[in-house]
Amino acid sequence: MSRLRFLTAGESHGTCLVAILEGLPAGVPIDAASIEAEMKRRQFGYGRGPRMKFEADRVELLSGVRHGKTLGSPVALSIANKDASIDRLPVVTQPRPGHADLAGAIKYDHRDIRNVLERASARETAARVAVGAICKQALSALGIEVASHVIALGSIRTVPARVTVTRLRATADRNPVRCLDARAAKQMMRLIDRCAREGDTLGGAFEVVVEGAPPGLGSHVHYDRRLDALLGQAVLSIHAVKGVEVGEGVRGSSLRGSQLHDEIFYSKAKGFSRSSNRSGGFEGGMTTGEPVIVRGFMKPLSTLRKPLRSVEIHTKKPVVATVERSDVTTVPAAGVVAEAMVAFVLTQAMLEKFGGDSLRELQRNLAGYRRQVQQF
Amino acid sequence: MSRLRFLTAGESHGTCLVAILEGLPAGVPIDAASIEAEMKRRQFGYGRGPRMKFEADRVELLSGVRHGKTLGSPVALSIANKDASIDRLPVVTQPRPGHADLAGAIKYDHRDIRNVLERASARETAARVAVGAICKQALSALGIEVASHVIALGSIRTVPARVTVTRLRATADRNPVRCLDARAAKQMMRLIDRCAREGDTLGGAFEVVVEGAPPGLGSHVHYDRRLDALLGQAVLSIHAVKGVEVGEGVRGSSLRGSQLHDEIFYSKAKGFSRSSNRSGGFEGGMTTGEPVIVRGFMKPLSTLRKPLRSVEIHTKKPVVATVERSDVTTVPAAGVVAEAMVAFVLTQAMLEKFGGDSLRELQRNLAGYRRQVQQF
Amino acid sequence: MSRLRFLTAGESHGTCLVAILEGLPAGVPIDAASIEAEMKRRQFGYGRGPRMKFEADRVELLSGVRHGKTLGSPVALSIANKDASIDRLPVVTQPRPGHADLAGAIKYDHRDIRNVLERASARETAARVAVGAICKQALSALGIEVASHVIALGSIRTVPARVTVTRLRATADRNPVRCLDARAAKQMMRLIDRCAREGDTLGGAFEVVVEGAPPGLGSHVHYDRRLDALLGQAVLSIHAVKGVEVGEGVRGSSLRGSQLHDEIFYSKAKGFSRSSNRSGGFEGGMTTGEPVIVRGFMKPLSTLRKPLRSVEIHTKKPVVATVERSDVTTVPAAGVVAEAMVAFVLTQAMLEKFGGDSLRELQRNLAGYRRQVQQF
Amino acid sequence: MSRLRFLTAGESHGTCLVAILEGLPAGVPIDAASIEAEMKRRQFGYGRGPRMKFEADRVELLSGVRHGKTLGSPVALSIANKDASIDRLPVVTQPRPGHADLAGAIKYDHRDIRNVLERASARETAARVAVGAICKQALSALGIEVASHVIALGSIRTVPARVTVTRLRATADRNPVRCLDARAAKQMMRLIDRCAREGDTLGGAFEVVVEGAPPGLGSHVHYDRRLDALLGQAVLSIHAVKGVEVGEGVRGSSLRGSQLHDEIFYSKAKGFSRSSNRSGGFEGGMTTGEPVIVRGFMKPLSTLRKPLRSVEIHTKKPVVATVERSDVTTVPAAGVVAEAMVAFVLTQAMLEKFGGDSLRELQRNLAGYRRQVQQF
Repeated sequence: MSRLRFLTAGESHGTCLVAILEGLPAGVPIDAASIEAEMKRRQFGYGRGPRMKFEADRVELLSGVRHGKTLGSPVALSIANKDASIDRLPVVTQPRPGHADLAGAIKYDHRDIRNVLERASARETAARVAVGAICKQALSALGIEVASHVIALGSIRTVPARVTVTRLRATADRNPVRCLDARAAKQMMRLIDRCAREGDTLGGAFEVVVEGAPPGLGSHVHYDRRLDALLGQAVLSIHAVKGVEVGEGVRGSSLRGSQLHDEIFYSKAKGFSRSSNRSGGFEGGMTTGEPVIVRGFMKPLSTLRKPLRSVEIHTKKPVVATVERSDVTTVPAAGVVAEAMVAFVLTQAMLEKFGGDSLRELQRNLAGYRRQVQQF
Repeated sequence: MSRLRFLTAGESHGTCLVAILEGLPAGVPIDAASIEAEMKRRQFGYGRGPRMKFEADRVELLSGVRHGKTLGSPVALSIANKDASIDRLPVVTQPRPGHADLAGAIKYDHRDIRNVLERASARETAARVAVGAICKQALSALGIEVASHVIALGSIRTVPARVTVTRLRATADRNPVRCLDARAAKQMMRLIDRCAREGDTLGGAFEVVVEGAPPGLGSHVHYDRRLDALLGQAVLSIHAVKGVEVGEGVRGSSLRGSQLHDEIFYSKAKGFSRSSNRSGGFEGGMTTGEPVIVRGFMKPLSTLRKPLRSVEIHTKKPVVATVERSDVTTVPAAGVVAEAMVAFVLTQAMLEKFGGDSLRELQRNLAGYRRQVQQF
Repeated sequence: MSRLRFLTAGESHGTCLVAILEGLPAGVPIDAASIEAEMKRRQFGYGRGPRMKFEADRVELLSGVRHGKTLGSPVALSIANKDASIDRLPVVTQPRPGHADLAGAIKYDHRDIRNVLERASARETAARVAVGAICKQALSALGIEVASHVIALGSIRTVPARVTVTRLRATADRNPVRCLDARAAKQMMRLIDRCAREGDTLGGAFEVVVEGAPPGLGSHVHYDRRLDALLGQAVLSIHAVKGVEVGEGVRGSSLRGSQLHDEIFYSKAKGFSRSSNRSGGFEGGMTTGEPVIVRGFMKPLSTLRKPLRSVEIHTKKPVVATVERSDVTTVPAAGVVAEAMVAFVLTQAMLEKFGGDSLRELQRNLAGYRRQVQQF
Repeated sequence: MSRLRFLTAGESHGTCLVAILEGLPAGVPIDAASIEAEMKRRQFGYGRGPRMKFEADRVELLSGVRHGKTLGSPVALSIANKDASIDRLPVVTQPRPGHADLAGAIKYDHRDIRNVLERASARETAARVAVGAICKQALSALGIEVASHVIALGSIRTVPARVTVTRLRATADRNPVRCLDARAAKQMMRLIDRCAREGDTLGGAFEVVVEGAPPGLGSHVHYDRRLDALLGQAVLSIHAVKGVEVGEGVRGSSLRGSQLHDEIFYSKAKGFSRSSNRSGGFEGGMTTGEPVIVRGFMKPLSTLRKPLRSVEIHTKKPVVATVERSDVTTVPAAGVVAEAMVAFVLTQAMLEKFGGDSLRELQRNLAGYRRQVQQF
């Protein structure tokens, strides 16, 4: 049993999504408005179909919080679905390429693919964002902040530069594609418009940035304690994310050692520090104290208006999988989901390193360690 | 408790490395020669320093195997270190950029960085390769084969094409850089020679290919059951691997949906199949039945002869971290380690899906499922 | 991650209880009436205070079930609380001996003990019974049945004899104290009446019986795979249960080896069998194929009308912890909760041994093993 | 992944036993003599057959410890077997009642029962005792001490009274049956002598006592966080232990509430305290700060010279399972094994609550909490 864990449940046209987050300390202030804000950020983004426009998802906290603070007991939450028609929806027998449809139907022995796609839908990430919003508040009380932005959309790529959480918050979310580079953002929107007309879809890449994590989260001592790998898993677990890198993981693999590694400096004021952060804040599977940088690569959406060939599962006849309307891209939203997953994994890592059953105890333990780091 | 698990232990100049692999069914044939062969593959590769040349690692099976077959009880193994001088080795106080040195010393409150680097060393991967060699034999008994090759070394990149395990085995390991493309291989070796002269190091990329995995391993139903993400974690947990992709994860993120997704076909003989495999054998976090393709991006080694700036931890004075001799690159070996990690995770997934406490039971359950898949 | 897991959430005067059960195969028939029947069984029992009399708990399935069958996705359920006044209830500052009150307040740094007792309440077991009701249906589809009865109440003890699930179901639940021995049952009720008058409380013991489990669940190969120990943990995790035995665990410790062990016989018709079952169906941490017998010892309830001395946590002044009305005993209900916990752990064990993502696959794997057992 | 974990491996006539303990903080002093002392305590005890007399088990630390302190990396250890003849030992085809033999052979599809009994043997507990000896040293550095004594042997039962660790250490281990009550001890030895003559075996009961655990280890918030239940599992996982109680778990179930619960007092000097400890130091699944008391009930050994009926597995003919020489009882040793398991689970609980990657950090966090408790 790990110290902090969560389960989600719910189908996209069922009653609701549910999540239980178990293992938080008591006394963490939980602000409902912040949760709602995260829910909206996930629903936002240029390139979404019309259905996301209307009503925002509302999170109902069912347990574990009282008078605005966590109790230490499990936090349960639900998010109602607007359309809970799952029992009346028609049978689906044409698996869509790129989706869980075919493998899921075979695995679970379903003859109605709806039994797969209802759960495989990215609707589930709403529950993750709610869980992540709570973790973010816990991290915030410990001086750790998480943000993200879009760094590529389809063929439009930006050159990632060092960026602060403050600037990300001030800028990225004000932009319909959540991209800092205003010129690239315009190109991305134009590309989305073109794909919308052509019935095609787009993928891209996002970057999550975390500030304030102390050095020494995760560990080199065992393969399954390497925190960068755990963050990688968390980001890869997001729908349509098929690649991940920590810092300059992909580009750095083609550099030479003398070009890549972040040299070590020391000053009285700041202690040990680096002038570069190509490692993405990780050495030996541990945080270095520099900002954590994790990037995800997302494939273009699998539900597209352009026809893809498939097979009807009963007749085995070839068919063409089409769909009426669809999002062109959800990369901006995926970055928000990734923030949630990163926030969860970092909260786990903080609790593993610092223990603590109340926020006060956790903060005290962290303060003791921060002094120890300063005196190292 | 997951069904199959392993722990490793051991410092690079301690007595030995140890691993315990717990949860295998009984009756799996274990061939010592195959384990030794894997150990050699890990030590092999152009670009290694002179120390790896002499004696091969030998694995001693300490438990869990009798008369050449697993017993169902935990398999313990040890690998002796040639140089077990850890207690006499000098204190280290200059952390090397790119290594676990500084973060590890701070985290564990060590004033002798040797206490970190002895465990953080890639020597530990020898234990993983031994564990993976056993898992590979279990998988092999189930018709699943794992292989790998180098697809990039420094700035020399190849264009990955569909390749079979048979061809990989026949070709990749015969080549000092484990690269299929003979022309690229020559360029890679030239680049290594140049870097060796200049005291620099190289990273690169490798691809692991798995054939024979049935559709439906892993699951879309919960974020921590997505097998591609678990494979990603396993590969990212390897020393110096900072990026990972499933199939065309990185390049695919810049394509359009109509260009990327693998269309679905059906024939009496083969059942459902795809003409392309850009998904790397995964949809919705589950195997599709196509070959599994996972690629890792490895940073250049952090131990280089070219000077990198650092700080002495007691005096806080700036120093220059140098090293006498070193490998130029270990990308060929990293691919072998990645095979081991992939083999472990796939064996876990097979046991989770098919159960079975004897190989006979596991094979029977798998055969039943393969029939079910055919009749789907 | 274990194959099957569940989390519960909810405070006793919060909105509702919530549970998520993750890891069930698809295709398991789920009958709402059976769940409701289990919920009623938990609320039933002579010795309960008046509050339990009125309305039965209703379980709402929120996900994971469609058209009466599991989907393979997580099953979420909620149970509304009749009184959701948690935010308006008064502060509690007098910890009750025998409760989580004091340790919980210290641990979580709560100055209002209500923040502890709301979660520590046995109300939480309603969620477990709902989860167990679902597991029981999965087990039932595999030929495994779980039942229980009360074998001791306060000083009134019965002599446990071999008893079938069929008889338990026909008899135990028809009896207000869920005891098979009619004479003892009468004595128990008289004792409860006396304690009710005197403001005192009673503990006791219950026995859970499982029929149909195949031999070989659990394992001797590792300490944390011993299924009897896992069942022990599950039963000890129930509120007020402070002792557990497998078969004749306690009494058997005073017997001699020649009196205790269950000799082994064989017949064509039944295969291997035993004429006695003092082992409670376990040898070496594994099921033997005989009925599983696990017994729990429950302390008398800690909320009693007779005064117990305590201390006010702010003033540190001695106080007397009293309570208006209370149950005299809940041993009959505890047996029902124990059935749920046992059902969960056995479902875990079945899935670990047999795998399977659909009921059909699981049944096929089990049938194959049953044939193997017969031919052993 | 839990913070602290261990695996053991090894067959009783294999090369050696191996254990890996992963997750300890760095800087814990490890004293080889203390480990050896624990190993001897396990081999000690009136009623053991002649084989245990000669040579003591020696533990070799293979990793994770340097200059007498833990490194934070996994601690591997091995214990050589004197007789490593497993490959030459004869086939066994007569399952012994009360052993893992039959269920294990069926489960793992073994036709040679030796493949089961080699691992099912209590020899494995030597590895646990070594692991526990290390955990005890970690606990000791945190002010927590673990001891045990025998409270019943066969029909000879003592009345457990409150006893200190100091007294247990001074007395129990000086006594060949590890029993504090000198008169009972004599009776026990006489009973053992009689059984030795008659070829019979004896079970009994032991009590583990822990002093110094702070209040608030474990938790009421979730069923699988209840520390008393986890301790119960750990003790039940020991060979031949079939029952467990926390404090007065069994006897207390027949008392009334007014007789059982430990009233709460307060004094400036000691803070909150109790005058009795019938709860065994647990309320709501959490430590109360009073001594932890866990008792195990052990069945008589299954290997006895008196004949028990069984069946030859190939011919299915009835046979009589006899054995040449055997221990009469191992209850004194089982108490030592139980100390080890309790020490492991408590170290887990301490690390979960207090975190810490160095002993210094762990001690600092604990000291902060102890102040918080005082000021509560």
